[in-house]
Amino acid sequence: MRELTVSLGERSYPVLIGAGLVDGCPALVDLAAGRQVAVVTNDVVAPLYGERFARWLRPASSEFIEIVLPDGERHKDWPSLQRVFDQLLARRFDRRCLVVALGGGVIGDLAGFAAAVYQRGVEFVQVPTTLLSQVDSSIGGKTAINHPAGKNMIGAFHQPRLVVADVATLATLPARELSAGLAEMIKHGAISDPAYLAQLERDCDRLLSCDAAALTAAIERSCEIKAAVVAADERESGVRATLNFGHTFGHAIESGLGFGTWLHGEAVAAGMVMAADLSRRLGMLDSGAVERLRGAIAAARLPVAGPAWDSGRYLELMAVDKKAEQGIPKFVLLSALGHALVRSVPEPELRATLEQCVR
Amino acid sequence: MRELTVSLGERSYPVLIGAGLVDGCPALVDLAAGRQVAVVTNDVVAPLYGERFARWLRPASSEFIEIVLPDGERHKDWPSLQRVFDQLLARRFDRRCLVVALGGGVIGDLAGFAAAVYQRGVEFVQVPTTLLSQVDSSIGGKTAINHPAGKNMIGAFHQPRLVVADVATLATLPARELSAGLAEMIKHGAISDPAYLAQLERDCDRLLSCDAAALTAAIERSCEIKAAVVAADERESGVRATLNFGHTFGHAIESGLGFGTWLHGEAVAAGMVMAADLSRRLGMLDSGAVERLRGAIAAARLPVAGPAWDSGRYLELMAVDKKAEQGIPKFVLLSALGHALVRSVPEPELRATLEQCVR
Repeated sequence: MRELTVSLGERSYPVLIGAGLVDGCPALVDLAAGRQVAVVTNDVVAPLYGERFARWLRPASSEFIEIVLPDGERHKDWPSLQRVFDQLLARRFDRRCLVVALGGGVIGDLAGFAAAVYQRGVEFVQVPTTLLSQVDSSIGGKTAINHPAGKNMIGAFHQPRLVVADVATLATLPARELSAGLAEMIKHGAISDPAYLAQLERDCDRLLSCDAAALTAAIERSCEIKAAVVAADERESGVRATLNFGHTFGHAIESGLGFGTWLHGEAVAAGMVMAADLSRRLGMLDSGAVERLRGAIAAARLPVAGPAWDSGRYLELMAVDKKAEQGIPKFVLLSALGHALVRSVPEPELRATLEQCVR
Repeated sequence: MRELTVSLGERSYPVLIGAGLVDGCPALVDLAAGRQVAVVTNDVVAPLYGERFARWLRPASSEFIEIVLPDGERHKDWPSLQRVFDQLLARRFDRRCLVVALGGGVIGDLAGFAAAVYQRGVEFVQVPTTLLSQVDSSIGGKTAINHPAGKNMIGAFHQPRLVVADVATLATLPARELSAGLAEMIKHGAISDPAYLAQLERDCDRLLSCDAAALTAAIERSCEIKAAVVAADERESGVRATLNFGHTFGHAIESGLGFGTWLHGEAVAAGMVMAADLSRRLGMLDSGAVERLRGAIAAARLPVAGPAWDSGRYLELMAVDKKAEQGIPKFVLLSALGHALVRSVPEPELRATLEQCVR
């Protein structure tokens, strides 16, 4: 098992990475001891890991409930959140209870947000079971639900007390979701570590075939990068915004297609190619780097272009992005593979990218 | 105009108290300058102060909207919150926008919670227009909405950037709401300042007839007490809990009758008499002090007893109180007028109070 720390002063917490952690994790038993524990999960994950997980966690708790939500990004909404509150209140869970998110990014974001606002905030633990959530969304305390007008529009910064990433759970992951996770890993390489990007290019086939050693090494490096960025800028007032590389375009794609049509990682993948293309048009990045990134994304079996909408549609969708300031979106761009920065862009170059980088 | 500060390090903020502030407040103009500003108010306050307020605040902002919600505690719920989000998103308000709560405690709690979670948190200002919100709920950053199973069950700690209390707005306040505000002021005296309690007893008639000088002096002292408690314990892990004197009983009354049947201050008033009676039964407080507190509450034209439910009903309602730990409620009790503490209580004495202190 590997362990690293997200350093945030008194809100610091460990990230544990290893095989078999859903069958037992002493750190989680310690945290749950004598407390009311609510495991929030979905109807795909529950049959796979729910009982294996409850077997050792239930005896540690004073009271144990499992809250099973419907699977899918479209359920990352108020009715699902309400179901969590209804069940916590029906069982009279108090403000010392512990919420455990067992599932992918949707469950982590939603259960984390439920914990952030239930009785003005209770503690929670992330147990991510998808590659994307293990390397990205489970770390850093961003929690949210979607609004019909935009993704993650309602949320909070609320750090977990512990993150438990079991790489063995990835064996049951559909190939498409494995690729979607790789998108965020490629992002970590693209914005801050060219050597890691090269590692992902080299290990791509092993990662796609779920090789445990390759996955563990890559997940650990991605978690290190994510943890360092979060430690430097918890509330996204500076460097943390670079983690949104590909996300301004990606959110527009997800929102325009309807949440859940493309996986988040798929939309970010296309968005990264678009952001790299835009960087090139602005004279910041050479064509070779753009092509190398596009190649890495294609090798991971991810889309390299967005839906064929006209640029006006994209601009409209992007203007409600959280990073937009009074309607003018800012973008995370690359000045080299491994170096990202945030800036406003002129509309003509943006429109050119939107016209070129679509199917 | 009086000014005091809630001292919370980088989250410190001023509280301004004076007559005529809804007709102009330079500190608020400065804060709103060049920003998207959303005034959240209700359909009772909007006709009284909406346009007077907008006249000088609108020109300072880059974009200005007024969001008018239905009045009343029963609307402190998700549908109202959703209306705020819908309108902010329809106008593409970004994360640098400013939310201004113009109204009583319901508006302040709801608009504050909307600001706490809109795009993971935007800044907000409290402009309380009721006595209760001026002396209590506008200060300290507690925000929330209600759940059918309990009051303020969904919320966040989110401090305002500024509190602007215009005592002139109290002239339009119904007598019943003025009394409800007095309940929280009596509470401040009862838990921490016997001299202030004596001042309220002495000035009771002047306060009920809206004497500006008496009101300003009392509001300032209440705000000082509240600010000092919040500064000492922002997240309610210790002394701040004493501000809940009367609230465990009070919340049970509000919840059992349906939110809004009794005003919050009315329920707290009866709850304070019950908590004082319980303190006496536990040998902590003498009968004279209980009677003095009951007299002050009666003089403020507030209820001194709860609805005539049996004790079982009360216990059931109190077990979902946020201060309950795994079903056993804790209570704020008095060891003297001016001295409060939090403790668990034995059930027989609690039942005796519940059987005695009802109508």
